[in-house]
Amino acid sequence: MQFDELSPRTLRDPYGYSGKWHFYPEDVLPMWVADMDFPISPAITQAIVERLQERVGYPQMKGDYRLLERIIQQQSQHGLEGLTPENLLLTTSVVPAIYASVLALSSPGDEVITQVPVYPPFLNVLSEHHRVARHNPLQPTPSGWEIDFEQLERLVTPRTRMLLLCNPQNPTGRVFRRDELEQLAEFALRHRLWVMSDELWADLIYEGQHIPIASLSPEIAQRTVTLTGPCKSYNTAGLGGGVAISHNKQILSALAQVSKGLGGHPNVLAMAAWRAALEHAQDWLQQVRAYLKGNRDLITRFMQQHLPQVGYRPPQGTYLAWLDFSQTPLAQAAHRVILEQAKVGLNDGRMFGPQYQGWLRLNFATSRQLVQEALERIARVVQAVD
Amino acid sequence: MQFDELSPRTLRDPYGYSGKWHFYPEDVLPMWVADMDFPISPAITQAIVERLQERVGYPQMKGDYRLLERIIQQQSQHGLEGLTPENLLLTTSVVPAIYASVLALSSPGDEVITQVPVYPPFLNVLSEHHRVARHNPLQPTPSGWEIDFEQLERLVTPRTRMLLLCNPQNPTGRVFRRDELEQLAEFALRHRLWVMSDELWADLIYEGQHIPIASLSPEIAQRTVTLTGPCKSYNTAGLGGGVAISHNKQILSALAQVSKGLGGHPNVLAMAAWRAALEHAQDWLQQVRAYLKGNRDLITRFMQQHLPQVGYRPPQGTYLAWLDFSQTPLAQAAHRVILEQAKVGLNDGRMFGPQYQGWLRLNFATSRQLVQEALERIARVVQAVD
Repeated sequence: MQFDELSPRTLRDPYGYSGKWHFYPEDVLPMWVADMDFPISPAITQAIVERLQERVGYPQMKGDYRLLERIIQQQSQHGLEGLTPENLLLTTSVVPAIYASVLALSSPGDEVITQVPVYPPFLNVLSEHHRVARHNPLQPTPSGWEIDFEQLERLVTPRTRMLLLCNPQNPTGRVFRRDELEQLAEFALRHRLWVMSDELWADLIYEGQHIPIASLSPEIAQRTVTLTGPCKSYNTAGLGGGVAISHNKQILSALAQVSKGLGGHPNVLAMAAWRAALEHAQDWLQQVRAYLKGNRDLITRFMQQHLPQVGYRPPQGTYLAWLDFSQTPLAQAAHRVILEQAKVGLNDGRMFGPQYQGWLRLNFATSRQLVQEALERIARVVQAVD
Repeated sequence: MQFDELSPRTLRDPYGYSGKWHFYPEDVLPMWVADMDFPISPAITQAIVERLQERVGYPQMKGDYRLLERIIQQQSQHGLEGLTPENLLLTTSVVPAIYASVLALSSPGDEVITQVPVYPPFLNVLSEHHRVARHNPLQPTPSGWEIDFEQLERLVTPRTRMLLLCNPQNPTGRVFRRDELEQLAEFALRHRLWVMSDELWADLIYEGQHIPIASLSPEIAQRTVTLTGPCKSYNTAGLGGGVAISHNKQILSALAQVSKGLGGHPNVLAMAAWRAALEHAQDWLQQVRAYLKGNRDLITRFMQQHLPQVGYRPPQGTYLAWLDFSQTPLAQAAHRVILEQAKVGLNDGRMFGPQYQGWLRLNFATSRQLVQEALERIARVVQAVD
């Protein structure tokens, strides 16, 4: 695959297809919404074309059973064992599964705990549906982001009902260790909380090992719904596809109930793409991961050398860099100034938690050249203001 | 196109893809869920393959603007004029738009009127979300199904909030006349009701003319959300795709609000398919319509000659025949007996309204030979019981 040969001229397709490339003006390098600039695996394209040889009417209610088997196999490789198709509920994508989890496992007025900063839909679903968000800020330490377990305990009240976990963590890129997950599981069980674990990024990690929290014990498996999908690893965000997984079938029934009607049925081409990804795109994924790791290492070196005043901890997974400009002269205005002066379009940190104004999320899933270009543009602006 | 060359052996694909063909045992002719046995237009396949040449990351928020323009053009051809892309809200399919309409335009405890028999999600959304369903049964007359306007007036109470209209009507196949729609619009305006008009079948009619109720006056346009999608006309149910249309942008904002998160974003391949359908599959559609009309006429002749005891009024649109077995010896057991003895799988009428036990919905979008086969199987069983 030619990862290096990406040009903004072709990435900004003339049809207006790409949301990422058509949101900002033409002179802006868009490194915001989480899809990759790389083309998808040819195996996926081929599978979709082959699928079109058959009818594209309504699929079976549970979805393509061979896809379900592949997902079960993938989860087993991650250590989540003992699943059958009855433990899986396909959804149109992962965000609907996040919403359905919160609606199914909590009620208005209930308190829900999540580590912040976090993927914006975690926060949006709580405010839109009148759940009380209790934030457990990840702590920046010299060795990286760490969970504050003491503060976590203090957040619990009689109304606490759920823990929303993002692992690997968006936007910090943390891949939680077994000891951390065991402590979270013990916490959730002791307080009888439901756990939603969004593990969408599990196959895009560079260090450490992905451990599904539900794999730690039968007890935590009974209180957990694990969410995943093909969109991040295989770059198929526009096709959708998601799955809610639980050893506790009552959790899945509750999810199906709240999303009934509103959720829509899984797209047959998305299912074909997802199955092909799991069956035939593992080499592609390995190459992408190696290339992304190179980009991550480039960012790490660049930040140390040229932007030491910007807070940064190398992500262990995801293709996201979480950058703290609050101690630079850009401070609270970082998003606007970097957009307007550096001409780099990043995600505003405020969407990931109200206290993260002055923070930015950078998507580095593009050619190394464009990553370098973006970093240089940002550095020039920061240094000019210094 | 070779409509006649459909064989159950190939329609029951070996992969388990088709929900329609894999729900019942192998010896059953499945003529239930509403997709067609015909292959899709090659123009749609080609458009999907071409779309795969570009990235399939997140689309723009509003969706493919060229698709929106095509939908506006299609609506204009139906007489619904003055639309801009701001009057359109794309959804993953039509059922989510039905649910969102009811959730956005009524509250729990509100009364909602709909003609019955009707597409099951109309009834399901009301019961699942604690709206009070008020049924306005269509009246069988010698000339066909008619709206009972006197009963309609008697249904109104201070809690009545919405009218759910299905036009062309599923399952009766009625295409409502201008005078009927004008009377419905006057009724809705006089009682200040919101109107959801599901017009998904608008391009599959054999007699009469499809008239969007929102096209009748600016006043009714302000109180109406019109729903449609490509799935029925172009046989792409497995791809999804739907749109909510309203001249009243506040209606669309309310729909977007209630479906936020749960709905998912439009699939990029579904958008490409839909656009290709509107741009390049009109000849295909015309051929399909002509063939379906032939099937409809075959059913009409067959029922008159061989099954006069079964209630039947020729549908003016849709590929659905709505059959009343309640006056035959099969009576309430019709669905089960026809499934078990005739080996024909139809939709049970009870799903379309509690009073329709003994009624069945037959989907005739298959080869003429299979329609004939199904009718003969049914006739043998009815005549044997006689």
